[in-house]
Amino acid sequence: MSHNTFGHLFRVTTWGESHGPALGCVIDGCPPGLPLTESDIQPWLDRRKPGGSRFVTQRREADAVRILSGVFEDAAITARFGGPVTTGTPISLLIENTDQRSKDYGEIARQFRPGHADFTYQAKYGVRDYRGGGRSSARETAARVAAGAVARKVLGEGVAIRAAVVQIGPHRIDPARFDWAEVDANPLFAPDPEIVPVWEAHLDERRKRGSSAGAVVQVEAMGVPAGWGAPVYGKLDAELAAALMSINAVKGVEIGAGFAAAAMDGADASDEMRAGAAGPRFLSNHAGGVLGGISTGQPIVARIALKPTSSIATPRRSLDEDGAEIDVRTLGRHDPCVGIRAAPVAEAMVACVLADAFLRHRAQVG
Amino acid sequence: MSHNTFGHLFRVTTWGESHGPALGCVIDGCPPGLPLTESDIQPWLDRRKPGGSRFVTQRREADAVRILSGVFEDAAITARFGGPVTTGTPISLLIENTDQRSKDYGEIARQFRPGHADFTYQAKYGVRDYRGGGRSSARETAARVAAGAVARKVLGEGVAIRAAVVQIGPHRIDPARFDWAEVDANPLFAPDPEIVPVWEAHLDERRKRGSSAGAVVQVEAMGVPAGWGAPVYGKLDAELAAALMSINAVKGVEIGAGFAAAAMDGADASDEMRAGAAGPRFLSNHAGGVLGGISTGQPIVARIALKPTSSIATPRRSLDEDGAEIDVRTLGRHDPCVGIRAAPVAEAMVACVLADAFLRHRAQVG
Amino acid sequence: MSHNTFGHLFRVTTWGESHGPALGCVIDGCPPGLPLTESDIQPWLDRRKPGGSRFVTQRREADAVRILSGVFEDAAITARFGGPVTTGTPISLLIENTDQRSKDYGEIARQFRPGHADFTYQAKYGVRDYRGGGRSSARETAARVAAGAVARKVLGEGVAIRAAVVQIGPHRIDPARFDWAEVDANPLFAPDPEIVPVWEAHLDERRKRGSSAGAVVQVEAMGVPAGWGAPVYGKLDAELAAALMSINAVKGVEIGAGFAAAAMDGADASDEMRAGAAGPRFLSNHAGGVLGGISTGQPIVARIALKPTSSIATPRRSLDEDGAEIDVRTLGRHDPCVGIRAAPVAEAMVACVLADAFLRHRAQVG
Amino acid sequence: MSHNTFGHLFRVTTWGESHGPALGCVIDGCPPGLPLTESDIQPWLDRRKPGGSRFVTQRREADAVRILSGVFEDAAITARFGGPVTTGTPISLLIENTDQRSKDYGEIARQFRPGHADFTYQAKYGVRDYRGGGRSSARETAARVAAGAVARKVLGEGVAIRAAVVQIGPHRIDPARFDWAEVDANPLFAPDPEIVPVWEAHLDERRKRGSSAGAVVQVEAMGVPAGWGAPVYGKLDAELAAALMSINAVKGVEIGAGFAAAAMDGADASDEMRAGAAGPRFLSNHAGGVLGGISTGQPIVARIALKPTSSIATPRRSLDEDGAEIDVRTLGRHDPCVGIRAAPVAEAMVACVLADAFLRHRAQVG
Repeated sequence: MSHNTFGHLFRVTTWGESHGPALGCVIDGCPPGLPLTESDIQPWLDRRKPGGSRFVTQRREADAVRILSGVFEDAAITARFGGPVTTGTPISLLIENTDQRSKDYGEIARQFRPGHADFTYQAKYGVRDYRGGGRSSARETAARVAAGAVARKVLGEGVAIRAAVVQIGPHRIDPARFDWAEVDANPLFAPDPEIVPVWEAHLDERRKRGSSAGAVVQVEAMGVPAGWGAPVYGKLDAELAAALMSINAVKGVEIGAGFAAAAMDGADASDEMRAGAAGPRFLSNHAGGVLGGISTGQPIVARIALKPTSSIATPRRSLDEDGAEIDVRTLGRHDPCVGIRAAPVAEAMVACVLADAFLRHRAQVG
Repeated sequence: MSHNTFGHLFRVTTWGESHGPALGCVIDGCPPGLPLTESDIQPWLDRRKPGGSRFVTQRREADAVRILSGVFEDAAITARFGGPVTTGTPISLLIENTDQRSKDYGEIARQFRPGHADFTYQAKYGVRDYRGGGRSSARETAARVAAGAVARKVLGEGVAIRAAVVQIGPHRIDPARFDWAEVDANPLFAPDPEIVPVWEAHLDERRKRGSSAGAVVQVEAMGVPAGWGAPVYGKLDAELAAALMSINAVKGVEIGAGFAAAAMDGADASDEMRAGAAGPRFLSNHAGGVLGGISTGQPIVARIALKPTSSIATPRRSLDEDGAEIDVRTLGRHDPCVGIRAAPVAEAMVACVLADAFLRHRAQVG
Repeated sequence: MSHNTFGHLFRVTTWGESHGPALGCVIDGCPPGLPLTESDIQPWLDRRKPGGSRFVTQRREADAVRILSGVFEDAAITARFGGPVTTGTPISLLIENTDQRSKDYGEIARQFRPGHADFTYQAKYGVRDYRGGGRSSARETAARVAAGAVARKVLGEGVAIRAAVVQIGPHRIDPARFDWAEVDANPLFAPDPEIVPVWEAHLDERRKRGSSAGAVVQVEAMGVPAGWGAPVYGKLDAELAAALMSINAVKGVEIGAGFAAAAMDGADASDEMRAGAAGPRFLSNHAGGVLGGISTGQPIVARIALKPTSSIATPRRSLDEDGAEIDVRTLGRHDPCVGIRAAPVAEAMVACVLADAFLRHRAQVG
Repeated sequence: MSHNTFGHLFRVTTWGESHGPALGCVIDGCPPGLPLTESDIQPWLDRRKPGGSRFVTQRREADAVRILSGVFEDAAITARFGGPVTTGTPISLLIENTDQRSKDYGEIARQFRPGHADFTYQAKYGVRDYRGGGRSSARETAARVAAGAVARKVLGEGVAIRAAVVQIGPHRIDPARFDWAEVDANPLFAPDPEIVPVWEAHLDERRKRGSSAGAVVQVEAMGVPAGWGAPVYGKLDAELAAALMSINAVKGVEIGAGFAAAAMDGADASDEMRAGAAGPRFLSNHAGGVLGGISTGQPIVARIALKPTSSIATPRRSLDEDGAEIDVRTLGRHDPCVGIRAAPVAEAMVACVLADAFLRHRAQVG
């Protein structure tokens, strides 16, 4: 993981700023012969796209993706694969920015918005593109989602990756009521319809007060066989942790039982095994599908905590570039809870990590 | 981060199994001219060393480190630096294993101990060194601690890294009583002497029942200037997450407010700033010293959750390599709470990540 | 160096096929605050651009570069730097393909052109974009040249990189007549005007016969201080060798005396040193500016050998995808000597390697 | 390729100085289940070992290798594999230095020996281990040869890698007399017995004059299937070039026809193809087994040029660390032609590059 690239064999390099002309990614190392068109990618981008409800930013971006390289089709390929396929060369994906509002950034240009990366980018680089947060904007995650769509192709039908919001503000779902089938039936990615009005009320209240809410997102990968991951510094959970922690606003990552594991009794914490029809059967999944950095064959389960959106209308104390004390109010188009749209992003990151783990496993073990 | 190497410019490669002849690491990319002898490394190894109390394994290892390369001294260097210094070439560190008990592994050789990596190593590699867990043993962390000692030299006196145990089993410390000065005054790395008897009682009870306990460890780095870290996939918190999650038994990592951030009000979650005597002064540190993946200049604060030791005397249901159902009892010399000794390991990992971030920052920004 | 990325800190990822909609690169790790606009890059692309003489392909590409990210400007930046500057975030460069002739590739689609990568891409990937050679086309080098222009900005005015053609076919220049000032005065990048008519006659003769010519290109970097490069596998000459060998049609790389060094007397081969006004003065440069993988402060001198263009009108025996024996004649728009246009490409690769070496050196040594 | 590590999936990290206590390497990413003992490695080290004839250094090193990790054996493994096998975890190899003469380095300690890395290490690091050249000594290549032995295991019986000296001083072999069967029948790795007395006379003459000789080594890999290598910056020939150029004293690398390709006619340079019994049959191998960075299935052929040994008895002008002008005579135990012992080293580097290419190919294409 080096600056703006992640992955070892399935490698994703993203680029672009919130208010630049475009953003995108280059995916290298993709196996050849995988059917791929824009229509395989676009639905995932649409799912992440702002504008879906009053609980996300009102910025309107088509997020239309173009494939610029790495895919080819002719009559013979169509006959063989049914359409364009990957060629094994780098896949360049481009998404144009179309709704960057032309406005005067005069004020924000020299202010450090609390909770944002304004101060740290300035401290590091001495110069920054402050428009919409520039490179640190969550808009960058569109490129991740596009890459994740390609990663899913690498993983194939056997691996299913899905995410749900399991907490907004202080309101957690009841795990007993968790139903994956509900997640796409509401704009909050909630796995329980009963929590939706609770969360909506909470978000409305926060927004009206000029504040915002945090969230916890759970992401799972079903169908990963035992054996993926590479100890000891390329552990599957270590790479998942890095990939998920790199998502904007994430402050915590846990695998399986996570922080709750600390309080468990040793006799309960380990997942016992019995013989199953098709190999070992685990009697629980506190490990979250990873032991010793290698997948167990159980579902891989991770959760991430996202802090509340930092851009809020309530004035907050801060400094400008000259060190003068100021109050900052952020009025623009902002998600009251960035955690909601993090669900498809978390899925994409897990997909990319798993595609990479799959290729690395195949390399070493055949 | 690739298999058994981590870091980009300050690169650490570790090797060795629990019951092999030795273990060690190679540290590459270390700046030249840093005074370094075995006596700079040994105290950190001693701090992690088993045998310190009844709450850690009774295996007795001297953990004596030898420097095999990368350091040089002659009269001129002694006159100039006071002793041997790094030369900029790879530093090879070797620790011999001396207390591998000669015993019959006949039984464990074909058993999958629940909670351990036995099953996953077998599933991945088809063959494994089962003696003491082989490569997946926490004994590997000795090499990390040795590397961390060198990383501290790179960071210099200005950066201080320290860790404390803040929870054992269900018993958390009272944050108001947190006192770093107490941590080294007790064998449990507790920052509050009043919690020590509570934890001791808990550990004794678990051990007597043939069970074990989990823990939460907090690690902090003081003195890191603003600007370290490299967005967006080399974010400082992403690299810390990977490094910490790679430690044996860790199931969760959080930065700053961590999972608690999800429930916070947006108006409270961001750290406000005022002008300070020597630059910006933050009024809180919910960010844990990282914004947008770059250090803020505040202390970097991370916490990790460790599951209870999987090696317990209580029989657990499992399988052997043939798929036969068995009961596994582990009677050997095991820590009743691996989280305790994870404190110096977590420090070491943070030190290595920061040394790498420092060099990368210097590379890009000068 | 991993697939389509090269460099460690100054990292270049290129993408794109000969007849796709566009090609480009992402440059990561560039220091912030460097003035950069398209006009800093375009002249280097123009220098490499086809269409300059009858000795290069007649394909007409504007090769107009667009900067899509990583550069920013506002009034304050203009006042401070005089124009847009790099921000330290990834720089995405895009060049549209505009002169891909719409033609029927029916024949070439299933043929393996001798000397080309048709067969090997098919053998590796099982599918390939055969239009103009797809990813294996020398058109990819436009992205390298664009990246090289940015690398020059990183290196600054103090380092000058230049290349000349020193041999076409069997005709070598007389080293005694080598004059860098002549190189840009003729379309063959010849450092001696007297060789130009010889080469032109040779190229005309080869072309008329339906054949092609090879070349040797010499590239030099002046002003590199002593100390860049990182032994022992990141040696400056090793990285130059990889970067230069990766250029299409290159079959050999030598540094300094190169292959001639094998025949030299040991007493002559080493460059003696005397005290100079500003430090050590070498009495010769057989080392080509590199000793032990580290720069000496002398000019870095490399030469590359390029095979003759493989696309020729003379029929050559080959196979098609079905294994049937065929004769291949290539009639399209092709350089009769690809070595000529390799001069700016070689410069670019050296610039990128040096920019990376500079940043790595600064990282380790400060 | 980063500092002291090379390879991507089959990764080799070497460490150690000429006169330190030991040297060695860590091999990561090796597939599991490969039979491996010290006796698989030792013969290759013995082949490289000094002391074989009057034409190599008289330093006497046993070069006895120890495997410290990554290999395991028990009764079940012996029954299944016949002996110890790799486990997929890092393989640490250690070679002790035993014949470092205790001598006074007082003079050389501050001198820059022409042609050596003394000056550049000092310029880069400001401090250096000058004993025997420290890290820059060719003694480091023992670790490469050990790693190469493991790489051969990864490649299996189907791939054979061999090297021969084809030129010493100005005396080249007659290619028509090239006979691989002769190479191990003489201490100069000559593929033609008739050249041996010529080379011996040349080496004796150079040595008596207090000088030394250069050499050209040819290395070939037979049995590599078509498809290995990864365009465009991980090209097989680019990686070979880097690996070979990183060997001490190498000043040039060429693949196939190499520099001679520049003078060839385009109609001759490309290797024509006909249908063979088992797939394509090439009618020549000017490409040296690589097209577009991917193996063709033909033998991979590379040649490297090595400069004469820089340590000679003839006084050469130089400087000391204070910049004072001195004459340097090197009287110690030195190879009169380092190119001879480079043959087994070149084989090892090619083996490592190919093992890595094999794993990467398997990763992407399956």
